[in-house]
Amino acid sequence: MSKYRLEKGVVHVYTGNGKGKTTAALGLGLRAIGHGLKVYMIQFMKGFNYGEHKAVELLPNFKIVKFGGQELVNPSNPTEEDVRAAREALDHAREVVMSGEYDVVILDEINVALDFKLIDVQDVLELIKNKPKHVELILTGRYAPSEVIKAADLVTFMREIKHPYRQGLPARKGIDY
Amino acid sequence: MSKYRLEKGVVHVYTGNGKGKTTAALGLGLRAIGHGLKVYMIQFMKGFNYGEHKAVELLPNFKIVKFGGQELVNPSNPTEEDVRAAREALDHAREVVMSGEYDVVILDEINVALDFKLIDVQDVLELIKNKPKHVELILTGRYAPSEVIKAADLVTFMREIKHPYRQGLPARKGIDY
Repeated sequence: MSKYRLEKGVVHVYTGNGKGKTTAALGLGLRAIGHGLKVYMIQFMKGFNYGEHKAVELLPNFKIVKFGGQELVNPSNPTEEDVRAAREALDHAREVVMSGEYDVVILDEINVALDFKLIDVQDVLELIKNKPKHVELILTGRYAPSEVIKAADLVTFMREIKHPYRQGLPARKGIDY
Repeated sequence: MSKYRLEKGVVHVYTGNGKGKTTAALGLGLRAIGHGLKVYMIQFMKGFNYGEHKAVELLPNFKIVKFGGQELVNPSNPTEEDVRAAREALDHAREVVMSGEYDVVILDEINVALDFKLIDVQDVLELIKNKPKHVELILTGRYAPSEVIKAADLVTFMREIKHPYRQGLPARKGIDY
């Protein structure tokens, strides 16, 4: 168990088309473990082998688990395997949240899984409603459904003003993954 | 020296009134050190004793240095001490960036220091212009001046959609600091 518990855990949503959603959740996790809280990040539909996995191995009380394969999901034609992986991720999220053992639970890119209809928004709303009081829940990914925004306490929309991809810069190791 | 260097470091700005600016920079740093890059965060005008300081002590190649006191700066009446601390922070930033030893340099809340006129925007533009090619430079804080936005490669505006402070929830240890 953690050294102390939050008196009241709230629900954050980081959405929008700008850079900074997953990293904001990671940074929040870093700050939380600095105060002795326990953090668990579940990644829905992340393709690459991210640098954050290597970094958190060095930290106590910060766990990251990835579901789904290396291939990016095709939104107009998700495979059965994509659906299975997203549901497994949600089942795992439910276990982790309801155990109450982790103070901050991050559901990374879950908004995209919802937008792609890989999982059902009702199941996510139920998880938000039933979470133990001290658990802080973070949902990231563009296209957060309005029901999720309505159920959340803290919502930030990351708006892209400029992005170097538009000028042809490829994704870079250590920065984008 | 780092295991590898970025071929081209770019300049990020995270601004706006929403939560997630400092945490996005922290998360980016976490990802970067996972790939063996070296990260240095310089905090302008941060009042509290933040959890991120404790957490990064556990990490190799991630350094955070804070300038200024515990008291928040009064924007309509900054003290001489506030100006001195912000200038010291900028001088230190210049040394760290120009040394080329750190791959990712984060100037946390520098946009606020600029907005409060504690430091001069021309000095910051010069730093952006003269930085070594491989250095990724991250500037955070609301009220980023238009000159800084123009000079940056990647800009995200964090827009507050909802915030529990508005419902009277105080800042919480492990989440907000």
